[in-house]
Amino acid sequence: MLTVNAYGANSATEPLVPLTIERRDVGPRDVLIAIRYAGICHSDIHTIREEWGPIAFPQVVGHEIVGEVTEVGSEVTTHAVGDRVGVGCMVNSCGECDQCRAGEEHNCEQGNIQTYASLDRDGTITQGGYSTHVVVDEHFVLKVPESLPYEAAAPLLCAGITTYSPLARWGAGPGMKVAVVGMGGLGHMAVKIAVAMGADVTVLSRSTSKKDDALAFGAARHVATGDEGALETLQGSFDLIINTVSASLDMDAYLATLRPHGSLVNVGAPPQPLPVSVFSLIVGGKSFAGSNIGSIAETQEMLDFCAEHGISPETELIDASQINEAYDRVLASDVRYRFVIDTATL
Amino acid sequence: MLTVNAYGANSATEPLVPLTIERRDVGPRDVLIAIRYAGICHSDIHTIREEWGPIAFPQVVGHEIVGEVTEVGSEVTTHAVGDRVGVGCMVNSCGECDQCRAGEEHNCEQGNIQTYASLDRDGTITQGGYSTHVVVDEHFVLKVPESLPYEAAAPLLCAGITTYSPLARWGAGPGMKVAVVGMGGLGHMAVKIAVAMGADVTVLSRSTSKKDDALAFGAARHVATGDEGALETLQGSFDLIINTVSASLDMDAYLATLRPHGSLVNVGAPPQPLPVSVFSLIVGGKSFAGSNIGSIAETQEMLDFCAEHGISPETELIDASQINEAYDRVLASDVRYRFVIDTATL
Repeated sequence: MLTVNAYGANSATEPLVPLTIERRDVGPRDVLIAIRYAGICHSDIHTIREEWGPIAFPQVVGHEIVGEVTEVGSEVTTHAVGDRVGVGCMVNSCGECDQCRAGEEHNCEQGNIQTYASLDRDGTITQGGYSTHVVVDEHFVLKVPESLPYEAAAPLLCAGITTYSPLARWGAGPGMKVAVVGMGGLGHMAVKIAVAMGADVTVLSRSTSKKDDALAFGAARHVATGDEGALETLQGSFDLIINTVSASLDMDAYLATLRPHGSLVNVGAPPQPLPVSVFSLIVGGKSFAGSNIGSIAETQEMLDFCAEHGISPETELIDASQINEAYDRVLASDVRYRFVIDTATL
Repeated sequence: MLTVNAYGANSATEPLVPLTIERRDVGPRDVLIAIRYAGICHSDIHTIREEWGPIAFPQVVGHEIVGEVTEVGSEVTTHAVGDRVGVGCMVNSCGECDQCRAGEEHNCEQGNIQTYASLDRDGTITQGGYSTHVVVDEHFVLKVPESLPYEAAAPLLCAGITTYSPLARWGAGPGMKVAVVGMGGLGHMAVKIAVAMGADVTVLSRSTSKKDDALAFGAARHVATGDEGALETLQGSFDLIINTVSASLDMDAYLATLRPHGSLVNVGAPPQPLPVSVFSLIVGGKSFAGSNIGSIAETQEMLDFCAEHGISPETELIDASQINEAYDRVLASDVRYRFVIDTATL
């Protein structure tokens, strides 16, 4: 066992504090990673505050992890000491079901093992990336291309793949009109990736406060949805909408902005059920879909795509001591666009 | 103008009665059809009782029409006197928008002109198929293959295309597990078509009353959803669900029966918005979609497919005088599976 420094919570209602956690010994197929940077995702906050259900404490979160390989197990073939690597939202899966065998680990029929707060196959509870080291099965370790700045790579492991996957699956590219609803951590990645794919991108956000950024990221236009009648002027406009907002929006109003056969894909997860008029779907044969991260192979594809197209998230680097303050700022939407923790400060 | 016999309503609250309506003179691109059979669709009832909004009276409904061409306009090239033809849910569209030019008339940006109760481009209100004759632009007239029994062809013009289109679009075929929810007029066509496409078909209906029919139509299995826990045993089973039910079902329970990346497509149109948990869509990357008839080209493709595979709806032939009684029986789900009016009795 390896005892490592981390930053986590002892209960859902207390702030995060420095603590130590145990990492398992490096098994034959394991990779030991010295973590360099860890991104802060809104899911971290939902989880550690038990907003998505009860968890075990103490708990360390973080699923946007980059670092260097410092040790590999005897059977590891895909990574070597010194490699720049990343770990995203999952660290294991059953490996045997139809989905796993098809390379769709995130859809494992047994449920994939999440990077934190999840019951691992060895009976322990997984602990996340706000720590100095992590031990992960080699299959769930991604290669971070040299051309990607290290700290910038971290948010790609969640925000990047979460938006890349639906854009790729629904064919974002030249001639396609894509709208991105909400421009936070996920939304700003959706804009950059969709632009790099060649799509015509519109940002839909409540106010004009991020309009300049949207255009700088390559969006063709920005529409402030808080303006009276703004959505009505967009009826029948888009082939694909990526909705990154976790609040309850008027789905029928957004579905009306789709062209026939268009799809609205939610990556934001509002806790309440959303009422949808079936007529909004039937007229024009439209789809309301969801998307959940992506497979390991697709995550690697996304990292390579971002490296090739020079895509990086906008980040604000913080010390571990600033994590609680950063949480407050995430909740206040006061971050452009992703906090990244320098784990050297743990 | 041609005055023809029909069967229609003088108000939303009165039974249908014999009446006469006017058909326009045959224009250069028009086809005059002597109607032989007209199917009864649940939409006819919704419309004429103003359950979908106010309409003009007197009104004749019916959008499952087959008959013979008895006259063609001077510029008509695609149909000739004596041809067996059909007319479905639409009789016109703008012809100029992107959708029309792409052969997607049903998604016309101006709204397609429905076969009845719709404002036609000449300013008249369209009147449907419970009549002896109809005049239709040749582009909206389908060819009924010789091998399709005449009366059986009628329901294909709505029930057939409504189910064929989503099955084709979502790729129903060998290796695909398709569920059909509800086995009425639409549902029984969905079963027959999906089976002919080579899919493994499961019928989900409340009771076992139609189980024998489902298996006779080629379904691999039938599950009575009224049985306690029936849906729970089907979790992760289907690639595609065609929901033909217009009542409010628990969509999350049905979405749970989809495999990852599966789609639930509604062709039934419940009037109330349906609550959908976004988590039901995100986990497994699933879609909740709608589908609305199909294009003219796809309707012809469907007719040819049904002829090739010997697919016919199950019909009960009635005289015009039985229409009101038939409406009562449709509402009581007491029809296996589609009423067809012999228009010689008008």
